[in-house]
Amino acid sequence: MTDFLDTGSVLFKKRHPQVGARPGTLMINDEAPPPCIHLIRYTADNVREQEIDDIEMLTELIGDPAMKWIDVRGFGDETLLRRIGEIFQLHALVLEDIVNLPQRPKTESYGDQVLTITRMIKLTDNNAIDMEQVSILLGKGYVVTFQEREGDIFDPVRDRIRHGKGRPIRLNGADYLAYAILDTIIDGYYPVIESLGDHLERMENIVMENPTTQTLQELNRTKNMLVNLRRIVWPHRELVSSLMRDENELIHDNVRLYLRDTYDHCLQTGEVIEMYRDMATGLMNIYLSSVANRTNDVMKVLTIMASIFIPLTFMAGIYGMNFEHMPELHVRWASPAIWFAMLTTAAGMLIFFYRKGWIGRG
Amino acid sequence: MTDFLDTGSVLFKKRHPQVGARPGTLMINDEAPPPCIHLIRYTADNVREQEIDDIEMLTELIGDPAMKWIDVRGFGDETLLRRIGEIFQLHALVLEDIVNLPQRPKTESYGDQVLTITRMIKLTDNNAIDMEQVSILLGKGYVVTFQEREGDIFDPVRDRIRHGKGRPIRLNGADYLAYAILDTIIDGYYPVIESLGDHLERMENIVMENPTTQTLQELNRTKNMLVNLRRIVWPHRELVSSLMRDENELIHDNVRLYLRDTYDHCLQTGEVIEMYRDMATGLMNIYLSSVANRTNDVMKVLTIMASIFIPLTFMAGIYGMNFEHMPELHVRWASPAIWFAMLTTAAGMLIFFYRKGWIGRG
Amino acid sequence: MTDFLDTGSVLFKKRHPQVGARPGTLMINDEAPPPCIHLIRYTADNVREQEIDDIEMLTELIGDPAMKWIDVRGFGDETLLRRIGEIFQLHALVLEDIVNLPQRPKTESYGDQVLTITRMIKLTDNNAIDMEQVSILLGKGYVVTFQEREGDIFDPVRDRIRHGKGRPIRLNGADYLAYAILDTIIDGYYPVIESLGDHLERMENIVMENPTTQTLQELNRTKNMLVNLRRIVWPHRELVSSLMRDENELIHDNVRLYLRDTYDHCLQTGEVIEMYRDMATGLMNIYLSSVANRTNDVMKVLTIMASIFIPLTFMAGIYGMNFEHMPELHVRWASPAIWFAMLTTAAGMLIFFYRKGWIGRG
Amino acid sequence: MTDFLDTGSVLFKKRHPQVGARPGTLMINDEAPPPCIHLIRYTADNVREQEIDDIEMLTELIGDPAMKWIDVRGFGDETLLRRIGEIFQLHALVLEDIVNLPQRPKTESYGDQVLTITRMIKLTDNNAIDMEQVSILLGKGYVVTFQEREGDIFDPVRDRIRHGKGRPIRLNGADYLAYAILDTIIDGYYPVIESLGDHLERMENIVMENPTTQTLQELNRTKNMLVNLRRIVWPHRELVSSLMRDENELIHDNVRLYLRDTYDHCLQTGEVIEMYRDMATGLMNIYLSSVANRTNDVMKVLTIMASIFIPLTFMAGIYGMNFEHMPELHVRWASPAIWFAMLTTAAGMLIFFYRKGWIGRG
Amino acid sequence: MTDFLDTGSVLFKKRHPQVGARPGTLMINDEAPPPCIHLIRYTADNVREQEIDDIEMLTELIGDPAMKWIDVRGFGDETLLRRIGEIFQLHALVLEDIVNLPQRPKTESYGDQVLTITRMIKLTDNNAIDMEQVSILLGKGYVVTFQEREGDIFDPVRDRIRHGKGRPIRLNGADYLAYAILDTIIDGYYPVIESLGDHLERMENIVMENPTTQTLQELNRTKNMLVNLRRIVWPHRELVSSLMRDENELIHDNVRLYLRDTYDHCLQTGEVIEMYRDMATGLMNIYLSSVANRTNDVMKVLTIMASIFIPLTFMAGIYGMNFEHMPELHVRWASPAIWFAMLTTAAGMLIFFYRKGWIGRG
Repeated sequence: MTDFLDTGSVLFKKRHPQVGARPGTLMINDEAPPPCIHLIRYTADNVREQEIDDIEMLTELIGDPAMKWIDVRGFGDETLLRRIGEIFQLHALVLEDIVNLPQRPKTESYGDQVLTITRMIKLTDNNAIDMEQVSILLGKGYVVTFQEREGDIFDPVRDRIRHGKGRPIRLNGADYLAYAILDTIIDGYYPVIESLGDHLERMENIVMENPTTQTLQELNRTKNMLVNLRRIVWPHRELVSSLMRDENELIHDNVRLYLRDTYDHCLQTGEVIEMYRDMATGLMNIYLSSVANRTNDVMKVLTIMASIFIPLTFMAGIYGMNFEHMPELHVRWASPAIWFAMLTTAAGMLIFFYRKGWIGRG
Repeated sequence: MTDFLDTGSVLFKKRHPQVGARPGTLMINDEAPPPCIHLIRYTADNVREQEIDDIEMLTELIGDPAMKWIDVRGFGDETLLRRIGEIFQLHALVLEDIVNLPQRPKTESYGDQVLTITRMIKLTDNNAIDMEQVSILLGKGYVVTFQEREGDIFDPVRDRIRHGKGRPIRLNGADYLAYAILDTIIDGYYPVIESLGDHLERMENIVMENPTTQTLQELNRTKNMLVNLRRIVWPHRELVSSLMRDENELIHDNVRLYLRDTYDHCLQTGEVIEMYRDMATGLMNIYLSSVANRTNDVMKVLTIMASIFIPLTFMAGIYGMNFEHMPELHVRWASPAIWFAMLTTAAGMLIFFYRKGWIGRG
Repeated sequence: MTDFLDTGSVLFKKRHPQVGARPGTLMINDEAPPPCIHLIRYTADNVREQEIDDIEMLTELIGDPAMKWIDVRGFGDETLLRRIGEIFQLHALVLEDIVNLPQRPKTESYGDQVLTITRMIKLTDNNAIDMEQVSILLGKGYVVTFQEREGDIFDPVRDRIRHGKGRPIRLNGADYLAYAILDTIIDGYYPVIESLGDHLERMENIVMENPTTQTLQELNRTKNMLVNLRRIVWPHRELVSSLMRDENELIHDNVRLYLRDTYDHCLQTGEVIEMYRDMATGLMNIYLSSVANRTNDVMKVLTIMASIFIPLTFMAGIYGMNFEHMPELHVRWASPAIWFAMLTTAAGMLIFFYRKGWIGRG
Repeated sequence: MTDFLDTGSVLFKKRHPQVGARPGTLMINDEAPPPCIHLIRYTADNVREQEIDDIEMLTELIGDPAMKWIDVRGFGDETLLRRIGEIFQLHALVLEDIVNLPQRPKTESYGDQVLTITRMIKLTDNNAIDMEQVSILLGKGYVVTFQEREGDIFDPVRDRIRHGKGRPIRLNGADYLAYAILDTIIDGYYPVIESLGDHLERMENIVMENPTTQTLQELNRTKNMLVNLRRIVWPHRELVSSLMRDENELIHDNVRLYLRDTYDHCLQTGEVIEMYRDMATGLMNIYLSSVANRTNDVMKVLTIMASIFIPLTFMAGIYGMNFEHMPELHVRWASPAIWFAMLTTAAGMLIFFYRKGWIGRG
Repeated sequence: MTDFLDTGSVLFKKRHPQVGARPGTLMINDEAPPPCIHLIRYTADNVREQEIDDIEMLTELIGDPAMKWIDVRGFGDETLLRRIGEIFQLHALVLEDIVNLPQRPKTESYGDQVLTITRMIKLTDNNAIDMEQVSILLGKGYVVTFQEREGDIFDPVRDRIRHGKGRPIRLNGADYLAYAILDTIIDGYYPVIESLGDHLERMENIVMENPTTQTLQELNRTKNMLVNLRRIVWPHRELVSSLMRDENELIHDNVRLYLRDTYDHCLQTGEVIEMYRDMATGLMNIYLSSVANRTNDVMKVLTIMASIFIPLTFMAGIYGMNFEHMPELHVRWASPAIWFAMLTTAAGMLIFFYRKGWIGRG
C-alpha cells in the first residue's frame, strides 16, 4: 500500500503574530530559508538572467524599460523583506499578507500595482501533495513573485521566456507574464486532481475486494484533502474573475481574454473536486455496508455450524444418560437408527439453509 | 445481469498540455482519427453535400452566399486543425478549447462568431453511455461543428435539411441550424435519462428482492453517473440562457424563441437528474437496511436453535453424570419424565419465540 | 394495509419525438382519447354551454363579445389539434409544449396571449395520486384549457359561472377566469398534501410498533413522491410570481391581487412538502434504528440462554467423565452439591443480566 | 419521563374551503368560540377599556381621534366577521387570510392599512407548545388584532398602555402599538426555544446514560418540531424586514428603528433553531451508535462465555466416551490432570480476552 | 483524557426581559460585577490612564481634544449604565443590545456614532473556550467598549498605545483604535481554532486506536461547538463588510483598508471552522464504523471457537452414548481413530477460517 497517495495533514496552521499585535507584524520562522532573489530581464530581443545579491540594485531596475521578473524565494530575513517592501512601496498589511501565510487566495488592486495571492500545488516525488503560497505582484514593467522556498513549477514559463523570441510572452507586457504564472499555478491543479482520481479508483477496488480499517481512514483523509482543496480552489475562481473585471489599466484587454480561459479552468477544477468528494463519501458508505455484510457472513457460518451440531449433540446426549430403564439402549438397531436420525436432521438443516440461500451460492 | 446499464467510469481525464505550456498548445492524441470534413451547402432551393479533401477550398466557400454546414470529425492532425483555425480566424485559446477536451460546456461570443462547446451524449448499442464533446462555431452564413470522431446523432437534422424544402431549416439562416444542432444534443439527454430511470426501477426490484454486494456497487456507480451528468447538464442551462440573452446580431429573435424551448428542456433534464440521484441514494439506504435485516434473520435462526437445544442438552447432560447416588436414575418413569420435561421446555421456548413474532410469520 | 396511499411511480416518462426531429413535432399517443371540446359562453346576464363538434365554429366565436371558456379534453387527433393551433394562432412550439407532456410548469406571454402550463393533481377514489397536465391559454375574451383526458377538478368553477350572477366571476374578464382555474389547481394540492400527512402519521405508528421491510419501501416511495411533488410545485411558484409581474395588459390589477393569494398558497404548499420530506427521512432513520434494536433483542435472548446453560452443561459434563479415580462421584452429597453449584451459577448469571438491564424491564 | 416537553403534532392541517370554491370563502369551524371584541382606547392622558357587544359601535369609533386597539378573539360567527370586514373595508381575500388558518406569516400593505399575519407561540402549563395565528391590522389611529381564541401573551403590553403615562406607548401612534404587539410575539419565541434547549440537554443525558426506543422517538419529534418552528420563524424575518422597508406612511421612522431590533431577534431565533436542529440530529446519531455499542457488549458477553466453556465441555466430553481402550481413564492423576488442563485453557482464554480489552475495563 | 479541550455547553441562554416588556428594559443579573471604568487618554505625544470613579467626569471628557478609550467592565449597576447611556446619548434599544446579551454580532451606524457588537473568544487556562460579548461604540474622539467582566485580550492594544509613540495607533483617530480592538477580537479566534484543530487531531488518533463511547460524545460536543462558532463568526463577516462600506464619515479611508484585512481574516476563520466541522462529522462516521468493526471481530472469535469445538463435542458425545451394541467402542484403535478424526476436523475448520481471512492476518 506504499503507492497510495499520501494526502497529508489538512489541519490549518497559520503563522500569525500574537493576538493584538500591531498590524503588519511579520512572523519570520527560524527555519525559513534566507531569501534568494532571481531576476529575469527581457525585451522582445534579448533575455538576461541573474541572481541578485545586493537588494539595492532593485531600486535602479524599476525604472529600466525592459520587462523584469523578480522572483523572491524564502522568507528568512525580515530586514530584507521589509526593504523589498519599501522599494516596491508595499503597504505594511500587504507585506504581512505575503509573509504570514497561509493567506486566503485573493487579488487586490492598488493604484499602480495588483497583488495576487495564490496557492501553488504540486505532487512531490513520493506522490504527496505539496502546497505553497505564491504571491504575484504586478507593477508597471515588472512582476515580483514571492515564494516560501526554492522549487516551483514555473520552469516551463522561464523556458518560454528564454526561447520564445517573437512569441506573445516576449511581445506582451508584465500583465501577460503575471497571467502566465497564474495560469501555470491553476493548471498545476490538474495533475493533482487526476492523481486523486486515480487514487479514488484504486480505493474503489480495495473497498470492493478487501477493505480494512485502514481503507476507511485513507478514504477519510482523501475526503478531507478534497474538502481542503475545494476551500482553496473556490477563492481562486473569485480571484480570477475579479482580475478579469478589474478596471486597473495595468491589465490589457487581450490578457483579460486569456484570463477567461483560466477562469474556465478554475470552474472545471472546482467541479471535479466536488464530484470526487461525493465519490469519496459514496465509497465510505460502501465500506460501511461491506462491514455489515461481513458480519452477516460471519453470523451465517456460526448459525449453520451451531444449528446443525447443537441438535445432534443433544441427540447424542440423550443416549448418554445413565437411566436404568432405557430399553432402547439395548435393541440392536438402536445405534444405526440414531445415526440415521442424526443424518436426517443434519440434511434437513442443510436443505433449510440452502433454500435460504445461505449455503451454495451464499 | 448483463442487461444492466453499463454506467462506465466517471473519472475526469482531461487532455491537457504540460503544466506551464504556452496557452493554445494543442494536445493531439496519437490514436485520434485524422480529421474528415463533411460539407452540406444549401439554399432554399437546393442542397449539395460533399467531403472536403483540400482544406483550402474552405477559404473560397466562406464568401459563398449559400448556407454552409462544415462538419469536422476527428482531431488527429494538428497542422490541419491549425489551418482551419486560421481560415475561420479562431483565437489560439478557442482552438485549444475545441481540441483539448473535455472542456466545460459554455458559449462565447466574438465580434462576428459565436462558439458553443457542448457535450453530446448517446446510448451505445450495448446500453452504455457515450459522451463526446461537440463544438459549434456559428458565423455569418456558416456553422462549423467539431466532433472528436465519426458517429453522431445529427442524421435527423441532415435529413431535415435534405428533404425540408420550404421548411424553417431551409428558410432560416445559420443561427437556426446552430439551434437545431444544439437542440438535438439537448434532446439526446432524454433517452439516456429514461434509460437511467428504467435502470433505477430494475435496481429497486433487485434491492427489494435479492440484493447482493454487486447491487450496492451498481447503485453507487449509477449515482456517480448521475452526479457526473448533473455536472454536465447545468452548464448547458447557463449556456442556452446566455445564448438567449446574447446581443450578438448573428442570432435572430425568432431563433431566440426556439432557444427558450431548449432552455426549458435543459431545466427539466437537470431536475429529473437530481430526482434520480435522490432516488439512487434512497435505494442505497434501503440496501443497507436490508443487510441489517438479513443479519437479524440469521441471528433469529441461531437464537431459536440454540435456545431450544442448549437447555435440552444440559438436561441430558445431567443424567449422564456418573454419580453413584442418583436415585432418580433407577426409577422406572425417570426416562419418560425427562422426555416430558424436555418436550415441555422446547414447547415453552417455541411459544416464547412465537409470541415474539420470531417464528410463524417471522 | 390496503388503505395506504398508493404513491405510484415517480419515474419520468416524457412523450418526446425522436431526437433531432423538427421542433413542433406532436407526439400523438395511439391510446389518447379523441379531443372533445366543451364551450361555456357567458356574460354578466346569461350562460350557455355546448359541446363543439365542428371545430370551425371556433373561428366565428373568437370575435363574439361574450366571455368564452373553451375546454379541450383529449389529445387523440393531430389534425384537429393543429387546426385549433391555427385558429388561436399558436406557435408550433407552443402547441408542442401543450401536447408533448409532461412539460415543466411555466408561463409565457405572447403579444395578446398568455399561456400557462400547470400540473393538476387529485386523489383518485382508491387514494392514489393522479397527475395531469393542464394548459391554460388566456386571450382577449376567451380562455382555452387543454386537458389530457376527461375528468378534472373544475366543476366548482363551472358552477360558480352558472350560478354566479352578479359575482366577480361573471363580472370580470377572461383573466379572472384563468386565475380561478389556476387557483383551483393550486388549491387541489392541499387535499393531497393532507392525505400524505395522514399517511406519514400512520407510517409513524407502524414504524414505532411493528415495522417490516414493507414499511421501509413504503416510506421510500412516499419520500420519492414528496421529492417529485416538490419538483412540480416550485415551478408553479415561479409561474404565479411571473404572472403577477407580467406587464401584459390582458391581466388586470385586481386579478394580480388575487394572484398574490395564489402565490402564498404555492409557497405554503412547497414548505409543507419540504417539511414532510424531512419527516419521511426521519422515519426511515427510526426504522433503521429499530432493526438494530431488534437485532440487539435477539442477541440478548441468545446470550442469556447460552451464558446460563453452557456453563451448567460443562458442569454436568465434568461428572459424566469416566475416570476411574474420581472419588467425588462416590460421596453421598455429591449430587445435591452439584445441583446447588449449578443453581448458584444460574442465579449468578441471572443477577448479572438483571443488573445489566437485559432482563426484567429489558 | 412525564416532564418531557410535549412537542405535539407538527402535521399541517389547513382550514381551507372546498377546492375550486369562490375566493374569499370563510371556513367557520363549528367549535370555534364566538367572537368577543375587546377595546382599549387611549390618549396621552387617559385610558378606557370596554367589551364591545354592538359591532356597529366600531363605525363611529374609527373617526375618533384617540388611539384604539380593537382585539377580536374567536372566529365563530361568519356574519359578524364579514361585518367587521366591511367596517374596516377589508378585501374578501384579506378576511380569508385572517380566518382560514394557518396562513403563512406575511405582511401586506394596502393604501391606508397594513396587515401583518403572524404566529404567536407559547408554552402551556404542562409545557406543551401552543401556536395560534394572530393577525394585526394597522390603520390610521387604530390597530385591530384577530386571535383564534381567548388567551394570549399581550397582557404586559396592555399593562404598559394602562400604566405607561408619559411613556412611548402612550405618546406614539398606532404604528408603535402594532410594533409592540409584533415584538411581543417574536420575543415569545425565546422561552419556547430555551425550553427546547433544556429539553435537548436532558435528552443528551438520557442518550448518554440510558437510551430507550422512546428516546429516539422523542428526539425525532423534537427535531420535527424544530423543523416546523424554522418553517414559521423565517417568514417572520422577511415580514419584519419588509415592514422596515415598507414605504407606507403609516409607519414612522422612529418605529422602523424599533423594528430593526425585532428583526435582529428574528435572525437570532432562527439561527438558534437551526443550531438546535443540528444538535437533535447529532443526538439521534449518538443514539444509533449507542445501540450498536450495546449489541457489541451483548456479543462480548456471549463470546466470552461460549469461548471459555465450549472447549471445556468438549474436554469433559472426551473423557465421557465409552471406549473400552482408553488407558488414560485408569491412571490415578488423570482427573487432576484434566482439571489442570481445563483451568489452563480457561485462564488462557481469559488472558486473551483481557488483552483484547473485552474484560477488565471492557 | 484531562487535556481534552473542554468544549463547554453551547446552549443558547439569552438574558431577556419578560415577554412583552417595554423595549429598552435592561436585565441586570444579580451576580454581575459592578461596572468599573478604565480610561486611556492619549495624543500623539502623551498617554494617561486612570480609573473613573465619578461617572460625571465623562461629560467633560467628551469635549476633550485628546483621543479617549473608555472601557466599561461589568454590568452590575443599572443606574450607572443608564447614566452612561445618557452621557453618550444612546438610544434605549442600543443600551439594551449592549446589556441584554448575547446579542447577534452586528454593526449599526447612527449620525455621529457607530456601534459594533462583537463576541470576544479566548482559551482559559484549563483550555476551555470562553466567550464574552464586547460592544464597541465609536464616536468623535472617543471609543467606548463595554465588557461583561474584567479580563480581556486587549492588553497588547493597550501596550501599543502606551509605547507606540509615532506609530499609527497614536497618530490615527478613534476609528483606528476601534479597528485595532475589533481586529484583536477577530485575531483571537485563531488560537481557539488551532486548539480545536489540535483537538481534532488527537481525537482522530483516539478514534483510530482506542475509541470509547466517551469519544463519540466528545466528538459530538466538538461538532456542536464548531456549529456554534460558525453561527458567531459569519455575522462578524457581515459586520466588518458593512463597516467597510459604511458611509459614515467617522471611518476614514485608510482604516477601511485595514478593515479589508480583518474581513479576510473573518472569511478564513469561517472557512476553517466549516472544514473542521466536516472533519468532526467524518470522525463520527469512522467511530460508528469502528463499532461495527469491533462487533465483527467479536463475532469472528465466537464463530471460530464455536465452529471448531461444537462439532468435536458432538463427536465426543456420540461415543458417550450408552448403546449396548456399539461394536466400535470395543476395537483397540477406536480411541486413536476418533482423535485423528477430531484433529482433522479442527484442522479443516482452521484452514477454512484462514482462507476466509478470519485468522492469521485477520
